[in-house]
Amino acid sequence: MTALRICFVGDSLTTGTGDAEFLGWPGRLCAAEGKRGHDLSCYNLGIRADTSLHIAARWRAECAARLPDIHPGRLVFAFGNNDTAIEEGALDPQVPPAPRVAPATSLATARAILAEAKAWKPVLFIGPWPVEETKQPVNPKGPVTYRFANARVAELSGTYAALAHELGIPYLDLYRSLAEDERWQLASRAGDGVHPPAEGYRLVAAKIGAWTAWRAWLD
Amino acid sequence: MTALRICFVGDSLTTGTGDAEFLGWPGRLCAAEGKRGHDLSCYNLGIRADTSLHIAARWRAECAARLPDIHPGRLVFAFGNNDTAIEEGALDPQVPPAPRVAPATSLATARAILAEAKAWKPVLFIGPWPVEETKQPVNPKGPVTYRFANARVAELSGTYAALAHELGIPYLDLYRSLAEDERWQLASRAGDGVHPPAEGYRLVAAKIGAWTAWRAWLD
Repeated sequence: MTALRICFVGDSLTTGTGDAEFLGWPGRLCAAEGKRGHDLSCYNLGIRADTSLHIAARWRAECAARLPDIHPGRLVFAFGNNDTAIEEGALDPQVPPAPRVAPATSLATARAILAEAKAWKPVLFIGPWPVEETKQPVNPKGPVTYRFANARVAELSGTYAALAHELGIPYLDLYRSLAEDERWQLASRAGDGVHPPAEGYRLVAAKIGAWTAWRAWLD
Repeated sequence: MTALRICFVGDSLTTGTGDAEFLGWPGRLCAAEGKRGHDLSCYNLGIRADTSLHIAARWRAECAARLPDIHPGRLVFAFGNNDTAIEEGALDPQVPPAPRVAPATSLATARAILAEAKAWKPVLFIGPWPVEETKQPVNPKGPVTYRFANARVAELSGTYAALAHELGIPYLDLYRSLAEDERWQLASRAGDGVHPPAEGYRLVAAKIGAWTAWRAWLD
């Protein structure tokens, strides 16, 4: 049997920023499947601060280098939080603060990525997750900071759910799955507002590992 | 303080094929530095079966997406084993078996990669490691298999050491460091001939973590 190669394409939530164990949720997910006897190769293609636009520009070349057609290959996309972040502190005071990517562009970009991906390999799509609004990540490099808000995350997650349904791609609404979960709230509060410590990544890995669409790839 | 972002560019030895913990040596190395108080972001850009030629084609775009110049960024390259592999089983019987990449091309390709990299960011170079010749990885997808031999690895490692010296880039000669190490031999025998189980990756992470050139980046 040949290993199933999976590319996990996303942002810092996929990389696992803040995870002292340096596994993120993709590493934990694949290690758990290994224990179940599945032979996986895990390519973590998360990049800190990436929006959907950054991902659109790079995913195909990066995944093509990792998923030669002679081996089974799969694609998992996870993005959205950074699209909703509002840049503060370095704007022209005449211009009202706006999300890094406008909602209509987030939708059109995700559509383009997912439609192309689905025509190539099996695809799963995982949405943005809830943030802890009382904390906000600090940008040490200058006046611009990003402000996150759950209302915008919830709205984008709903938009992405509808898009995925339309395209026939399984969607995991992490926002809805985590927003009311006390274990998540606890983990999120222990992080920087967006990135939880290891416990949060463990929880996300467990949610994805139990997701029917993920299980259907393996079992 | 802003995190130091490091790209680890290599092949399956960097990805960590065979490591049930899905950390490879880069994950273990960065986790150990985290415990020492260093704030690192770890981008594992290993791809199974990549030769120096594959890496030459992709490293700059992949690293540029991960190392924006507003944050400190570093490059660690680790390749060579796949260049030395001989394809067997599907060759024209009239043509003698040859390495996947001829030694002169391995050298010229590494020179091009490293010279360009050094002009951009701080660079470390880690050489190929010893294989267990009594075992050879099985290719489940067809008649072509790759045969590895320590004589070719040792020769390429010497070539790369001289190149790195010429370019003023620190080089870790893993071949020499591991070939006589009984812990490595034990781990290597427990793997598929090229990829050890977790214990082998732990050992490599410890060797790199103790390397003066690596320590100079952090301490």
